Amino acid sequence: MPTRTQAIVLAAGRSSRFNTSAIKLSFTLCGQEMIRYPLNVLKALKIKTLVVVGYQQEIIRGILDKYSYPVECVEQTIQKGTGHALLCTRPYWTEDTLLILNGDVPLITEAHIAELMKRHRSTAATISFIASYNADPSVIGYGRVIDNGEQVSIVEQREFTGDPARECRLNAGVYLIERAFLEDTLPSLETHPSGEIFITDLIHKASEQKKKIEIVDIPFDHVRGINTLKELWVAERLVRSDIINSWMAQGVRFIAPESVVIDYDVTLSPDTVIGYGVQLLKGTQVGRKVTIDAFSVLDGAIIGDSAIIHSHSVISHASVHGMAQVGPFARVHQHSTLHAESVVGNFVEVSKTTLGHKSKAKHLTYLGQAQIGKEANIGAGTITCNYNGVSKHATIIEDGAFIGSNSALLAPVTIGKEAIVAAGSTITESVPAQALAIARQRQTTKLHYAPLIKGKHAQAPDKLKLKLATQGS
Amino acid sequence: MPTRTQAIVLAAGRSSRFNTSAIKLSFTLCGQEMIRYPLNVLKALKIKTLVVVGYQQEIIRGILDKYSYPVECVEQTIQKGTGHALLCTRPYWTEDTLLILNGDVPLITEAHIAELMKRHRSTAATISFIASYNADPSVIGYGRVIDNGEQVSIVEQREFTGDPARECRLNAGVYLIERAFLEDTLPSLETHPSGEIFITDLIHKASEQKKKIEIVDIPFDHVRGINTLKELWVAERLVRSDIINSWMAQGVRFIAPESVVIDYDVTLSPDTVIGYGVQLLKGTQVGRKVTIDAFSVLDGAIIGDSAIIHSHSVISHASVHGMAQVGPFARVHQHSTLHAESVVGNFVEVSKTTLGHKSKAKHLTYLGQAQIGKEANIGAGTITCNYNGVSKHATIIEDGAFIGSNSALLAPVTIGKEAIVAAGSTITESVPAQALAIARQRQTTKLHYAPLIKGKHAQAPDKLKLKLATQGS
Amino acid sequence: MPTRTQAIVLAAGRSSRFNTSAIKLSFTLCGQEMIRYPLNVLKALKIKTLVVVGYQQEIIRGILDKYSYPVECVEQTIQKGTGHALLCTRPYWTEDTLLILNGDVPLITEAHIAELMKRHRSTAATISFIASYNADPSVIGYGRVIDNGEQVSIVEQREFTGDPARECRLNAGVYLIERAFLEDTLPSLETHPSGEIFITDLIHKASEQKKKIEIVDIPFDHVRGINTLKELWVAERLVRSDIINSWMAQGVRFIAPESVVIDYDVTLSPDTVIGYGVQLLKGTQVGRKVTIDAFSVLDGAIIGDSAIIHSHSVISHASVHGMAQVGPFARVHQHSTLHAESVVGNFVEVSKTTLGHKSKAKHLTYLGQAQIGKEANIGAGTITCNYNGVSKHATIIEDGAFIGSNSALLAPVTIGKEAIVAAGSTITESVPAQALAIARQRQTTKLHYAPLIKGKHAQAPDKLKLKLATQGS
Repeated sequence: MPTRTQAIVLAAGRSSRFNTSAIKLSFTLCGQEMIRYPLNVLKALKIKTLVVVGYQQEIIRGILDKYSYPVECVEQTIQKGTGHALLCTRPYWTEDTLLILNGDVPLITEAHIAELMKRHRSTAATISFIASYNADPSVIGYGRVIDNGEQVSIVEQREFTGDPARECRLNAGVYLIERAFLEDTLPSLETHPSGEIFITDLIHKASEQKKKIEIVDIPFDHVRGINTLKELWVAERLVRSDIINSWMAQGVRFIAPESVVIDYDVTLSPDTVIGYGVQLLKGTQVGRKVTIDAFSVLDGAIIGDSAIIHSHSVISHASVHGMAQVGPFARVHQHSTLHAESVVGNFVEVSKTTLGHKSKAKHLTYLGQAQIGKEANIGAGTITCNYNGVSKHATIIEDGAFIGSNSALLAPVTIGKEAIVAAGSTITESVPAQALAIARQRQTTKLHYAPLIKGKHAQAPDKLKLKLATQGS
Repeated sequence: MPTRTQAIVLAAGRSSRFNTSAIKLSFTLCGQEMIRYPLNVLKALKIKTLVVVGYQQEIIRGILDKYSYPVECVEQTIQKGTGHALLCTRPYWTEDTLLILNGDVPLITEAHIAELMKRHRSTAATISFIASYNADPSVIGYGRVIDNGEQVSIVEQREFTGDPARECRLNAGVYLIERAFLEDTLPSLETHPSGEIFITDLIHKASEQKKKIEIVDIPFDHVRGINTLKELWVAERLVRSDIINSWMAQGVRFIAPESVVIDYDVTLSPDTVIGYGVQLLKGTQVGRKVTIDAFSVLDGAIIGDSAIIHSHSVISHASVHGMAQVGPFARVHQHSTLHAESVVGNFVEVSKTTLGHKSKAKHLTYLGQAQIGKEANIGAGTITCNYNGVSKHATIIEDGAFIGSNSALLAPVTIGKEAIVAAGSTITESVPAQALAIARQRQTTKLHYAPLIKGKHAQAPDKLKLKLATQGS
Repeated sequence: MPTRTQAIVLAAGRSSRFNTSAIKLSFTLCGQEMIRYPLNVLKALKIKTLVVVGYQQEIIRGILDKYSYPVECVEQTIQKGTGHALLCTRPYWTEDTLLILNGDVPLITEAHIAELMKRHRSTAATISFIASYNADPSVIGYGRVIDNGEQVSIVEQREFTGDPARECRLNAGVYLIERAFLEDTLPSLETHPSGEIFITDLIHKASEQKKKIEIVDIPFDHVRGINTLKELWVAERLVRSDIINSWMAQGVRFIAPESVVIDYDVTLSPDTVIGYGVQLLKGTQVGRKVTIDAFSVLDGAIIGDSAIIHSHSVISHASVHGMAQVGPFARVHQHSTLHAESVVGNFVEVSKTTLGHKSKAKHLTYLGQAQIGKEANIGAGTITCNYNGVSKHATIIEDGAFIGSNSALLAPVTIGKEAIVAAGSTITESVPAQALAIARQRQTTKLHYAPLIKGKHAQAPDKLKLKLATQGS
């Protein structure tokens, strides 16, 4: 439904209480920047939007550029308060009613804004705004709504001297204001001692002029503004909790939902089990009947039905097909694909590699830039050597090949179909299908030599010029 | 103490609000299926038990088959409500009093049932049941106990239209009913519009007949029914918290008990320290003065006194004896045994292997199907090769043997007592005691060759037919 | 400011409800022993301190020996209650006022003690003590302060028979008492049936003698005594929470502060991000703009600005300089140093090693006792072999050297500047600068051999005497 309302999002302020070098609105909640939360609400309601930028505007503009709904930026060159920010947008006002929001209220929902608009229309109000009751005196940073029966006003936190537990109706910083009133009144607002002009003074002005003022009260959790990293944490927990509750309701079992980190764009499916502390990040998609065990981290991972991800696995920008098994202690990344029923075991890294159907690499292996066919067996301790100091090359291992343990494969090299590489070999030439390649020295056994070497006399190792070093302690 | 009471557990219903393919009663809380919780209470009280099965009865029967106390199943072929389920059991009634429970109340304790039975007897009641007060209007799924002073009845959740905060005495679904009354009344219960017959209507009938009705109120946490995965989570946390509190009281220190997952059959001992996020699963037994560091997962593990399990270790169906050390990043599984004072270090997998007293394998090693004696030293990067594509074989390493780093041992092979394997060897033949085995090529050093190769001109690698590849980026 | 006050800390008691073999006061909260918490407060206030020791006094004395502020110990040879403990210190009283504290109140702050002293002075009290209101009847272990308007007394928990919810002012065990009164009254306190003498009886005596008694009430969280491992957990959470809140306020982002374990002496810096479940232990120092991902454990680690520690990394007593990258699944320990912009990747252990500027060891490597220069490239699967069964030796890898994959370097050995080690080599001799070292067998390829070997007939492997074993299943 089109609307005669235009939104103005205030995103120009410094976020000094964050004590970080980046502006607070660029911090993410569940993988999405704070500023995008109110924008998503406006997009859902199809409201044309202006964003007032100023401090670190290049960061905010960068986020908006990636955003799919067109919004326009207006620059506020000096920080002179919310009223001044609003004034900066005056040349761009095109609609009859203006919806003004702070950029740092990520928990406001579409339903709340819709309710505000509905109430504004039905009461023919000049100003409507969202408020919330919270009697906790430790809650700070909110203007107080003072309604003495005759007049309504909002006192800014800095200027409030009353009893916070008694005057506990808080201003959420979300206003719907008739443009005609704004054009009359905004230019004449007084400047406070801090040098700032405040939107909140409009309420008192409207009240004095006997204009209709409508207040919509909503639960405090939804009006939370984010002024410190601690408040960011609290808000992110609320968002995360909503996401997880929704997946639980759809048949996903979380062993400990309170320990899971999940991003807004992750998708899960019924009959899947998410273990303790699992991290499900950006764009991860998980199929049905999947098990993801404790302490695994998935980032941009696609996991097929009935796959098993054992504990302590890290899967990043990679696909794991149905019934494949990964981990524990595996890392699959860099656009690798593990085909159905393949197995990647412990201390195995898979990078820029495709592992075919039912192929296995179960122990202490590095597969980089490798194309591996079906039912191949990659022995423990196998290393693909894809970088020679000048350039990088691929390793091809065809269907049914068998790579003996502790082998090194120097790319570019192809191991043919059903070929065998003997354990302990360093393979420098391609191996034809069904051939055996061996590249290791034969064993020599010297009887009674061990005592000579092993410290019966301490100088032996040097004399013999034998080096038998093993690991340190 | 024998009793003239017979129990009927209702386990036939669909669990549609779980949104999972498996029936909710098969889901575990702390490693034990939900249906077993009420059964354990009945077993402890030595009450003969019938279980009404229906939906996915093969799963329920499978769980009951593994259960050590004999229970009989009665099939309810169509789902027509709790009253109908009870009717199905009528041919098997043998005792004077029937105890009827839902299968999904895992937090009911022996003491609560005993109290119900005691009160039933002492008041000579016809029907006694358990209820709980909870004024939270968001609590749903429970029938409401309505006691107007003259009559008592239970209104099913679906048919309740009152104020949930006011009429807040909830029916737990646990009833003790005289068989004579049941035989008279049950067949005549009316069918509700949903096509179901409800046990709860018996209360009203009894009340009309001026029978004695006794209500036992217990705390809500113990009557929680499990109808969603979220409720399962809440209930499991309560069970887990009881388990952990009990171990804390017995001298086990948990660095962060809220982060630990523990199963019902795990045993711990005093002076042991459990780190952050440790997972203690099925049948794990941990001795005294053991340290288990953060993010370790133990599943069917037996850990001896004063062992140290460093962080990120996974021990599954394996034994670690006293004063042994494991990890970080170690995996010990498949019925392996680490003897006293042995050491398994980082990125080491131990599978189907025995590691003797004071033997060490500290870095990047795969030990599979190996029998290792005492005081052996397994160098970094050692691989036992137990599979040749046809069959599997064992590796035997005798007392005091020294395996140089980066060696491969091709099974079947025996490394004799105090023998030495030179670093970098691929061992194909057994090595006698005190012998030295060496199987590697001598080093050739070509002066000034490196610049030729290393990209001074890009074609060099091909011309020289030398491959010096290393890892990718 | 000097004070005429002398402190006596009671640390002689058995801690039987801990059910541990070590005395509770030796247990740490956030890396610091419980007994040190009250001592730190006394040190900050510059109050001369006596500690009464008894049970396991060698442990307490050991902790005090490491403590930088001088305190004197007085032995209580038999456990006869707090009053008796105080009597034991009588020969050492030197000041006019005695401040008596239990050793197990770690949450008392300097401000609370300062307030107690101020109130004691300003009211010219004979006895002042700290109390707290808590009406929770499950809170046990505290004496109850009974003030009937005329007289004040404290009834020990064991002797209290009143209603705990009504008489809910609890004694914190922190007293300021005039020495003159103590010298008069302490020797005459009666012995209770348990054989003990209680300090708390002094209150009643003072009250009877119409002495001024001053009570300072503070929030319960600060008077918590620690009598069980569960109470230790609760107190440690409070301390940890304060530490984390303080870092959040200083610009450190915690993805999930509730999951982080942090010690009292850790330092962090703004713009740093701490992931889920990160453990920040003893003396760890983290610079600005650092990322530490989930499940990493840092213990005595020094991390430079803009370093990235990927998930599942364990860094223990080691330094990671600016812009270096570590992990996932890396272990850096034993006083290793990773210089700026160096990279240590997955399944890599770095022990007693220095890795130079921009050098890389990215996959499956063990670097022990190695000195590695700048811009060196350590291939996947490289093993430094620093132990030969007799002694340990160093490996030196000079600037720009290139170590091919799957190589073993037998120490002592030096790889010269820009030298190359061919993949798969076992290096036993030093390699001059710019030389190429190769130590591997040439490859032999036998056509059509694979089927002969690979189980076409099961006996083949034995007949051919070929062993091609790879990993197990």
